[in-house]
Amino acid sequence: MRNLTLLTDLYELTMMQAYLQQEKTTGHRQLAVFDMFYRENPCGNGYAVAAGLQQVIDYINNLAFTNEQLTYLASTGMFAADFLKYLQSFSFSGEIYAVPEGTVIFPGEPILRVTAPIMEGQLIETAILNIINHQSLIATKSARVCWAASGDNVLEFGLRRAQGPDAGVYGARAAMIGGCSGTSNVLAGQLFNIPVRGTHAHSWIMSFDTELEAFRCYANLYPNACVLLVDTYDTLRSGVPNAIKIFEEMRATGLLQKNYGIRLDSGDLAYLSKQARIMLDAAGFQDAFISASNDLDEHLIAELKSQGAKITVWGVGTHLITSKEYPAFGGVYKIAAISKDGQNWQNKIKLSEDPVKVTTPGRKKIFRLYNKQNGKMKADLLALADETLTNQADLTIFDPIATWKRMTLPAGEFTVRELLQPVFIEGKCVYPTLTVDEICAYAAAERDTLWDEHKRLIRPQLMPVDLSQKLYNLKQQMINESRA
Amino acid sequence: MRNLTLLTDLYELTMMQAYLQQEKTTGHRQLAVFDMFYRENPCGNGYAVAAGLQQVIDYINNLAFTNEQLTYLASTGMFAADFLKYLQSFSFSGEIYAVPEGTVIFPGEPILRVTAPIMEGQLIETAILNIINHQSLIATKSARVCWAASGDNVLEFGLRRAQGPDAGVYGARAAMIGGCSGTSNVLAGQLFNIPVRGTHAHSWIMSFDTELEAFRCYANLYPNACVLLVDTYDTLRSGVPNAIKIFEEMRATGLLQKNYGIRLDSGDLAYLSKQARIMLDAAGFQDAFISASNDLDEHLIAELKSQGAKITVWGVGTHLITSKEYPAFGGVYKIAAISKDGQNWQNKIKLSEDPVKVTTPGRKKIFRLYNKQNGKMKADLLALADETLTNQADLTIFDPIATWKRMTLPAGEFTVRELLQPVFIEGKCVYPTLTVDEICAYAAAERDTLWDEHKRLIRPQLMPVDLSQKLYNLKQQMINESRA
Repeated sequence: MRNLTLLTDLYELTMMQAYLQQEKTTGHRQLAVFDMFYRENPCGNGYAVAAGLQQVIDYINNLAFTNEQLTYLASTGMFAADFLKYLQSFSFSGEIYAVPEGTVIFPGEPILRVTAPIMEGQLIETAILNIINHQSLIATKSARVCWAASGDNVLEFGLRRAQGPDAGVYGARAAMIGGCSGTSNVLAGQLFNIPVRGTHAHSWIMSFDTELEAFRCYANLYPNACVLLVDTYDTLRSGVPNAIKIFEEMRATGLLQKNYGIRLDSGDLAYLSKQARIMLDAAGFQDAFISASNDLDEHLIAELKSQGAKITVWGVGTHLITSKEYPAFGGVYKIAAISKDGQNWQNKIKLSEDPVKVTTPGRKKIFRLYNKQNGKMKADLLALADETLTNQADLTIFDPIATWKRMTLPAGEFTVRELLQPVFIEGKCVYPTLTVDEICAYAAAERDTLWDEHKRLIRPQLMPVDLSQKLYNLKQQMINESRA
Repeated sequence: MRNLTLLTDLYELTMMQAYLQQEKTTGHRQLAVFDMFYRENPCGNGYAVAAGLQQVIDYINNLAFTNEQLTYLASTGMFAADFLKYLQSFSFSGEIYAVPEGTVIFPGEPILRVTAPIMEGQLIETAILNIINHQSLIATKSARVCWAASGDNVLEFGLRRAQGPDAGVYGARAAMIGGCSGTSNVLAGQLFNIPVRGTHAHSWIMSFDTELEAFRCYANLYPNACVLLVDTYDTLRSGVPNAIKIFEEMRATGLLQKNYGIRLDSGDLAYLSKQARIMLDAAGFQDAFISASNDLDEHLIAELKSQGAKITVWGVGTHLITSKEYPAFGGVYKIAAISKDGQNWQNKIKLSEDPVKVTTPGRKKIFRLYNKQNGKMKADLLALADETLTNQADLTIFDPIATWKRMTLPAGEFTVRELLQPVFIEGKCVYPTLTVDEICAYAAAERDTLWDEHKRLIRPQLMPVDLSQKLYNLKQQMINESRA
C-alpha cells in the first residue's frame, strides 16, 4: 500500500498548524463535521455512481507522516517544531460514514461524512475528494456507455489515454463498477481480479508479409479466443475474407471454438458491421461475433445500434477512461457543524447568491425511499442524524426550493433504507473489504432500482432529493439569521 | 520506485507470446522501430510541450516481472510455461531516442523512437503512451494558461479534481514545465522539489465566530505569507474591509512584510478586483497583491485581463489539471520498420483514406531549423536517420501534402539542431537526470523560440513539419506500391 499522506493541498497543513496553535491557546480541541457532496451529475446524467471508497479506506489506513516527509515539511520553513512533533504521532482518530460503492447517488446529498478533530478532517479533505471524484466520474460515465450498449459487452480499452497510471488502473476499476465486463489493463486485472481482454494490434498484422499469414499464426496460438482485427488494409475486400478463410481452416481441423469473431477499428462501423455480418453468415459463421472500437462513446454507440449495426462487443477507450465530455466530477467537502469545546455542537451554513449553492447545515443522514411493491426508488430524504423514519405513517415530502412540489407516500406502501454506513469509528476501519465482483453485483442492482426514465442519456427525469421538515426548518432559520 | 511492468494492455502480452512462438519456428528474433507521435495539438494550440520522459525512464529502469506478477499471468490461463519463463528473465535491451522534456513539438513528428526486439517494443507501448500523453497534455494546457496570464504567476490548484493521485502529482509536475510557478500539491512539492503554495479555506473562516477573528489569528501565525480569503460572507462589505483592518494592525505592530494580499474565489473577478484594488490603495496598501481562483481557464483569464482586472496571481484548478476542454493528448505508437532476421530492415507504412493519417515509414530523426539572426524557429524537417544536414547550402523545404508550399532557407542564414536524443542504448539509460527546475528553464527557452503568432490561443499560425526529399520519395514510393 502506498503512503499518500502528503497527497494534500498545502493549505490543509497551514490550517492544521493554525488550529494546533489555537488549541494551545484555548485548551480545547475543536471537532467538526464535514460533508462530501456534489452539485451536478456528469454528462447531464440522471444520477451518478459512487466509487472509490475502498481506496479512501486504504489511504486512511496508511495515513502516517514518515521521517522523510517530516524532513521535507521542515525544509519548507513554514512549520514550527511543535507542529511537526504533532504530525509525527498523527493518526486518524475520527469517524467516517459513507454510501457503499456502486450506490446510485444524486446532487446535494452527503455521500461521505467525516466527524473528527478539525485538524484531521481538514488534512484528509484533498485525498478523499481526489479519489472519490475520479472513480465516481468514471463509474458514472461507464454506466452511461453500458446503458447505450443495452446488454452488449462493453470493454474498457483506455489505458494509453488515461491521465497517468492511477487514472488507468482505478479508472478500469470504476468502469467495471459502472457496468463494463472487462478491461485491457493487465495491472488492473491483477490488482482487482477483474477480467482482462484483448487480442492483437495493427502492428501484428504489419509485421507479417500478408494479412492471411498474420491471422493464421494468431489463430493457431489462440484458437479459443480468436478475434481477428480486420481493418489493417481493407476491411471488406481483405480483412473479412481472410478472417473467413482462417475460420474455415479452423472448422476443417476442428480447432474452431465458441468464442471467436472479428474486430473493426476504423471506417463506418454501421455499414461495415452489417456487410461483415452478411459475409460471415453466408460462410456459415453465424456465431462469430463482431466487436468494434475507434473513438466510441455512449452517443455513437446508441446511434450505431439505432442504425442496425451488427456489433455486440464494444471496446471503449478515450471517452470512457477520461470521461472526455465531462472530465471532472466536481465533488466538494464542506463544513456542516463545529464544536469548539468538543461537546456542544454549532451548525454551520455557507450562503451563496445561487440557492442550490447554499449548503445544508448539521450532521445529516440519507433516507432512501422505495415503492414497496416494485422496489423502485421514489426519492431521497436528507434528515438530521438523530431523526428516525418508518413507513408506519403517511409521509409527505417536498422540494426544498420549489416547496409547492409535494408528494405523499401512503403508510405501508413504501420502504425506507438508510444509505450512510459506518466506515471508520474512532479511527478504526469497521467496513468490510468487498471484492470488485461483489461491488459490481450491488451496483447493477442499484441501477435496477431506477426507472428507465432516470437513465435516459439526454434530459432524464430527475430524482427528488428533499429535506426532512426538521432539517428544512433548521436551514431556513439559519438563512434568515445570517441575512438579518 | 514503483514496478509498473503490468501497466500494459493485454494484447501486448498475447502478441509477445505469439512473437516468441514465431522466433522458435524461424530461429530469428525480429527487431522493430516504433514511433510515438500525435496528430493534433490540444485545445487548438499552435504547438505542444513534451513532458513525462523522466517517468518513462523510471518505468523502463524498473521493468521486471516479479514472481507475483508471473503467478497472476499464469492464473489467466492464457500463457504457456515457456513464455512465462521468458518473462522471468525479461529486461529491456533496446534503444530509445526522445526529444527532451519541455521541447515544443508539433503533430506528425516522432517525439520518441524505440528500436528493439519487437516483443520488447510492444510491451512498453502502453505505458509510454500513458505517461507521455498525460504529462504532455497538462504541460501544453499549462503553457496556454500561462500565456494568457502574460507574466503573472499561475499556481496549479487542481489536486482535488485530478483523475486520481498520479494525475494530481504528475499533473503538477507537467504544469510547472508548462510555466506555472507553484502548486498546492504537497506530495508533488516533495517529489520534484517544486514550490508549494496556499493559505486557508472557507472552512477556516467558518470555524470562527467572526471573519475578523479568523483573519487575525491567521495573520499572527503567518505574517510573512499573509493571503486572506475575502469572499466567505461578502467580499466588498466584509472581506476586504476586514483584511484592511488586519493589514493596518500588522503595519502598526511592524509585522507587515512584502508578501501579502487577498484571494477572491467567487463573484465577478473583474469588478471585485478593481474595487478591492481601490480600497487597498486608499488604505495605503498599494503593494498588497490580489489573487483569484474559481473555475479559471486561459480564456477567462485573457478576458478578465482585457477588462482591466487587478489580479496578478491566478490559481487554476480543474481546467488545468484535467485539461478539461481537451482531456486526452491522443499520442499513438506505430511501427515504422521491421527486421525479420535482425539484420535487414524493411520500412513499414500504414495507409488511410485520410492523408494526414498515413504514417511516415522508416527510422527517422528530426532536424529543427532556426533563423540564425534572431533564434526563432522556422520549421521542423523529418529525415531518415542516416541523413545529415548543414547550413552550408541553400535548403528548400516543402509541405508534404500541399507540395507547392515551398520555402528556401539561404545558406548560412539558418541553424540546424537535431531534436531526438539518446535515452537508452542497449537497454542502459544514457540520459542525464534533470531537475524539474532545469527542465522548466529549458522549456521557457523553447517557448521563446516561437513567435507570438504561434502562441495565440485561437487559430494560431501553424509551424511547418516537412519531410526531407529522400524521406518524401520513400513515402510516395511506398504509397504507390501499396495502392498497386
